[in-house]
Amino acid sequence: MVATRSFVPVSPDSDFPIQNLPFGAFRAGDETRLAVRLGDHVVDLRALAEAGSFDDAALADALAQPTLNALMGLGRPAWRAARATLLRLLAEDEPRLRDDAALRDRAIRPVAEVDVVMPVTIGDYTDFYSSREHATNVGIMFRGKDNALMPNWLHLPVAYHGRASSVVLSGTPVRRPSGQTKADDAEAPSFGPCRLLDYEYEMGFFTGPATRLGEPVPIDRATDHIFGMCIVNDWSARDIQKWEYQPLGPFLAKNFATTISPWIVTLEALEPFRCAGPAQDPEPLPYLRATGEQTYDIRLEVGLQTPAMDAPAPISLSNFRYLYWSMAQQLAHHTATGCPLNPGDLMASGTISGPTKESRGSMLELCWRGTEPIELPGGETRKFLQDGDTLVMRAWCEGDGYRIGFGECRGTIEPAL
Amino acid sequence: MVATRSFVPVSPDSDFPIQNLPFGAFRAGDETRLAVRLGDHVVDLRALAEAGSFDDAALADALAQPTLNALMGLGRPAWRAARATLLRLLAEDEPRLRDDAALRDRAIRPVAEVDVVMPVTIGDYTDFYSSREHATNVGIMFRGKDNALMPNWLHLPVAYHGRASSVVLSGTPVRRPSGQTKADDAEAPSFGPCRLLDYEYEMGFFTGPATRLGEPVPIDRATDHIFGMCIVNDWSARDIQKWEYQPLGPFLAKNFATTISPWIVTLEALEPFRCAGPAQDPEPLPYLRATGEQTYDIRLEVGLQTPAMDAPAPISLSNFRYLYWSMAQQLAHHTATGCPLNPGDLMASGTISGPTKESRGSMLELCWRGTEPIELPGGETRKFLQDGDTLVMRAWCEGDGYRIGFGECRGTIEPAL
Repeated sequence: MVATRSFVPVSPDSDFPIQNLPFGAFRAGDETRLAVRLGDHVVDLRALAEAGSFDDAALADALAQPTLNALMGLGRPAWRAARATLLRLLAEDEPRLRDDAALRDRAIRPVAEVDVVMPVTIGDYTDFYSSREHATNVGIMFRGKDNALMPNWLHLPVAYHGRASSVVLSGTPVRRPSGQTKADDAEAPSFGPCRLLDYEYEMGFFTGPATRLGEPVPIDRATDHIFGMCIVNDWSARDIQKWEYQPLGPFLAKNFATTISPWIVTLEALEPFRCAGPAQDPEPLPYLRATGEQTYDIRLEVGLQTPAMDAPAPISLSNFRYLYWSMAQQLAHHTATGCPLNPGDLMASGTISGPTKESRGSMLELCWRGTEPIELPGGETRKFLQDGDTLVMRAWCEGDGYRIGFGECRGTIEPAL
Repeated sequence: MVATRSFVPVSPDSDFPIQNLPFGAFRAGDETRLAVRLGDHVVDLRALAEAGSFDDAALADALAQPTLNALMGLGRPAWRAARATLLRLLAEDEPRLRDDAALRDRAIRPVAEVDVVMPVTIGDYTDFYSSREHATNVGIMFRGKDNALMPNWLHLPVAYHGRASSVVLSGTPVRRPSGQTKADDAEAPSFGPCRLLDYEYEMGFFTGPATRLGEPVPIDRATDHIFGMCIVNDWSARDIQKWEYQPLGPFLAKNFATTISPWIVTLEALEPFRCAGPAQDPEPLPYLRATGEQTYDIRLEVGLQTPAMDAPAPISLSNFRYLYWSMAQQLAHHTATGCPLNPGDLMASGTISGPTKESRGSMLELCWRGTEPIELPGGETRKFLQDGDTLVMRAWCEGDGYRIGFGECRGTIEPAL
């Protein structure tokens, strides 16, 4: 049974009740330490490990590291053991930590008093393109209604490799990139600041135990290699992308920054919100076929705040469950050739768009290529992001009297150099 | 002045005379140690560092690590200092190491007695597409002569992000990947072993000091961020690529394995072979403009050995200098948006094809999409690679009485699972 209350006070509308316990990292002084988030506190896992809270030596050692990679590499039995121990230790009726003032003071700290930092050394970053509505919207805009979806799209989860070095944590300012672009009526390209700066609302997952070169992960074991999830903002320079992307795909248009939310929500915490994804027709090839509910009911919200505004205004509402291809299908496809995984690889979903206009996952789609500007409270409008604009993404599962949330994925646009 | 002879005997036709001193790593027992290669020996850099051979503490510490990343991060002044010390220590007229039998025995070991291993933790891997002849050949085959080069090609070094986790060292067997393909006349795709397995002859470079998010590297400082070079075999599954690559570029077709040669040749060692690349017309935009000789005269050779053959037969001869876009241009372009570099990122050139048929850098081009099979000694023919085939790539600069070589980049195809 899951404890439903902790002795650490948690506001009822918090993203981080005891049912969640997402993993992250914080810096205090010169040290980086792993933590789970609980309400407005961080729980220092190294402090607990050093106090002998975890029976398993390998688990205790992994929790004392400065990144989650070692924990991710241990696999689901260790992840479950860590969660079970933490649920027990933090429960309101469990005296061991609650009544040990010295350990409690060492291990439980207000999040406002620490710096939350990147918790993973990301080896490889892959970005999928798994929303049918997004692929269709983009296809209609660029190729017309009759050829909107490419012939391969319904048969495999299309993806490309992204840049791991520019994945940054929520709150990191994003400088408007400069690059090469060419207007349709220009004779030659020119170099300068991106004019069509956009976001893409995605969710990502971090991989678990390493696999070996040449050894695919079958789809019925794919979930064993998924540690947990975060929000991903795949910032995109649409004008740079348009000129550069043929024939090898997006490159500089996507690699100036990718922002993730700092608390990684485990599949264990998401389990109560498991649900079915869209029906798949045609039926996928056997290596992509899975039974049972394959996705999660996660609500997604995007807010935009201009320098003239006091708070973000919602511009999009969507749901993770709209995605056509599941995480297990993505991972099975990715490894079908024998491509090896390492603990801490990041795989993102691609822009998540839903069936309605309000559920579109990028400004390109919300404004339909600039033809339908977003109207903001106060009278401003936006077709793409301007300097000083702040984008705030949120995601949460709505439970019975609690929510399993992801916190914020936030970034503010700085002017180009 | 560069010492031209070492007290360690080196065969006159070796790739690794004292003028070269490429960096790599070897495993002996449980330990991985950095080394430079000298003839048929490895020179243990940690042993030399621990003996006090390097004055600079940061340099000595970097050379005692199990990977080259720390050394790469130190930058060119440290790389030059390391090289100068090694050239002096290993010179035939320098008694310090030569006459210290104990240190010599510890530090200089036959390469045949150790395992040469991956010397770098590769953070991100980027693959360019910088050979005009290759892009033109592929363009003619797939789009016809009139639209062979894409409109962007002469304006920017096209590239895509690759998969770092599947970069392996020369000698690692390469399993034929399975994946989704679709014949032109098939109604639906199917899953199975790749039928059109190919190689791509590329050269790559490893990056040096880290750069920060949002801070481009100007082209006149790009070379400061290039540590050295290796051979890269970008194995390619042509049939998987054809079905998957629209619209986001190659993914599984390239990520099952990428093989590199184990000894990283520094720009210092290559300096005598600096030369001009092809004339660039139109003139590149200012951020891609460099003066002076921007490339190197490096001869490239590909050999193919089938199970029926006793030795590889040469199937292609080319030169690195044929590449249109220089390494400095690639790096300046890559960082123009502010994409950060880490020490040990790998950037590959893309397939290097030259102006003649024999200088084409892939079987796709050599056999012109399967229409002109390669004839091998003994009467066999090949359009693409078959199980058991071994591909051997070599590269070297021809000096006056010596060569600066890269050794081998070798891989044998294993049957699909």
